[in-house]
Amino acid sequence: MTQSDFLHPGERFDDLNRNGYSIIQDPKRFCFGMDAVLLSGFAEVRKGDEVLDLGTGTGIIPILLEAKTEGRHFTGLEIQKESADMARRSVAYNQLEERVSIVDGDIKEASMLFPPSSFDVITTNPPYMIGQHGLKNSEEAKYIARHEVLCTLDDVVKQSAKLLKPGGRFYMVHRPFRLAEIMVTMTKYKIEPKRMKLVYPFVDKEPNMVLIGGIRGGNPRMTVEKPLIVYEKQGVYTDEIIDIYGY
Amino acid sequence: MTQSDFLHPGERFDDLNRNGYSIIQDPKRFCFGMDAVLLSGFAEVRKGDEVLDLGTGTGIIPILLEAKTEGRHFTGLEIQKESADMARRSVAYNQLEERVSIVDGDIKEASMLFPPSSFDVITTNPPYMIGQHGLKNSEEAKYIARHEVLCTLDDVVKQSAKLLKPGGRFYMVHRPFRLAEIMVTMTKYKIEPKRMKLVYPFVDKEPNMVLIGGIRGGNPRMTVEKPLIVYEKQGVYTDEIIDIYGY
Repeated sequence: MTQSDFLHPGERFDDLNRNGYSIIQDPKRFCFGMDAVLLSGFAEVRKGDEVLDLGTGTGIIPILLEAKTEGRHFTGLEIQKESADMARRSVAYNQLEERVSIVDGDIKEASMLFPPSSFDVITTNPPYMIGQHGLKNSEEAKYIARHEVLCTLDDVVKQSAKLLKPGGRFYMVHRPFRLAEIMVTMTKYKIEPKRMKLVYPFVDKEPNMVLIGGIRGGNPRMTVEKPLIVYEKQGVYTDEIIDIYGY
Repeated sequence: MTQSDFLHPGERFDDLNRNGYSIIQDPKRFCFGMDAVLLSGFAEVRKGDEVLDLGTGTGIIPILLEAKTEGRHFTGLEIQKESADMARRSVAYNQLEERVSIVDGDIKEASMLFPPSSFDVITTNPPYMIGQHGLKNSEEAKYIARHEVLCTLDDVVKQSAKLLKPGGRFYMVHRPFRLAEIMVTMTKYKIEPKRMKLVYPFVDKEPNMVLIGGIRGGNPRMTVEKPLIVYEKQGVYTDEIIDIYGY
């Protein structure tokens, strides 16, 4: 089979700079951004870990984590059937079927799809924006990926608390403007915030992403890590970003 | 009267680089640090504001805010009588009696000492460390200032919520390792976190302070501000720090 056998009309392959892997994306739908890549660099996956990615989209996070870590198995859960199908074809193209599974399903029902307390690590790059009514059909896939239409922050954390083993680790990328709500929600479901890293586009600008790590049942003391600065100057990545991207 | 008329044995004057003001400190007791100065630069005090500083120590925050802002009146509450006395003498030496008052009293009872909903702004540089039993008498003043022996984070926020006007502003400097607890406690007492600024000693190090601003009854959306980096390189302050200190 050639590359094109894996593609549907409008789709393309993008190189992941890891193990020769590529990912199938459709520019008209939601394409992965720097947030997913930074989350894959922030999450700590240890040898033998069972890993779940909630709202996996095109499967970018499980595929990158499979390449970067010694986790035993990676599952991506996705509600949008076209995205899940694209993710499954990317898994097949990269020949990762034994270590990566893509499951169709709703985050809100995740704890009915998998056994309780069955994952060592949960990652998630959830919709950032507060949900609004009135979908624009033409861009529905992007809208669902970005807005809390089908699930909320509360749903994501609540389901994660049920699915993580005691002591299991939760990693999320989100927007700083929701930081207080993130801390309150994690604490409510007893996933104690333990690590936080702010991503500043430039050293003299407000951060536009926050990486959060929590432990199910952890003790209340956290580390705010050194800042992650994206650009050295306009158009030039810092060494840390280059390292995470694996260029 | 000369400077020395204001001093007790072991005390000294330290120049504040603002309006020619000085502050009385005793190196054997707790001396103000960069945290208090940064809080005075972070807090937003508007013309005519009534301002309260909880746990004022030697009065550094109300004295700096009097110099920097057009607030109408500044009150410092302090439980340690020797510190309050020093603060009162600093107020007298700088001839600020009409705009700055130092009150002896316990943060836990603050809402009984002042009328409810009577302040536009509350500032606080509370003890950072979780309380422990067993005071060391020789360094009791420093210990009380640093550890939650006489009041906890919960006490500080709870009393602030009672004393702030609706829409009133709360500004605190604290340690990043308690960030989750800070967000949870502020939210619990309906002082919504609205601003946060992390203070990184160097651009490639973990932050060692966090400045937090909240609004009593505010809506849940916050701004994480650009980082405050203290040192350009070893021993050389950044321009932002020099500006806050007023050198």
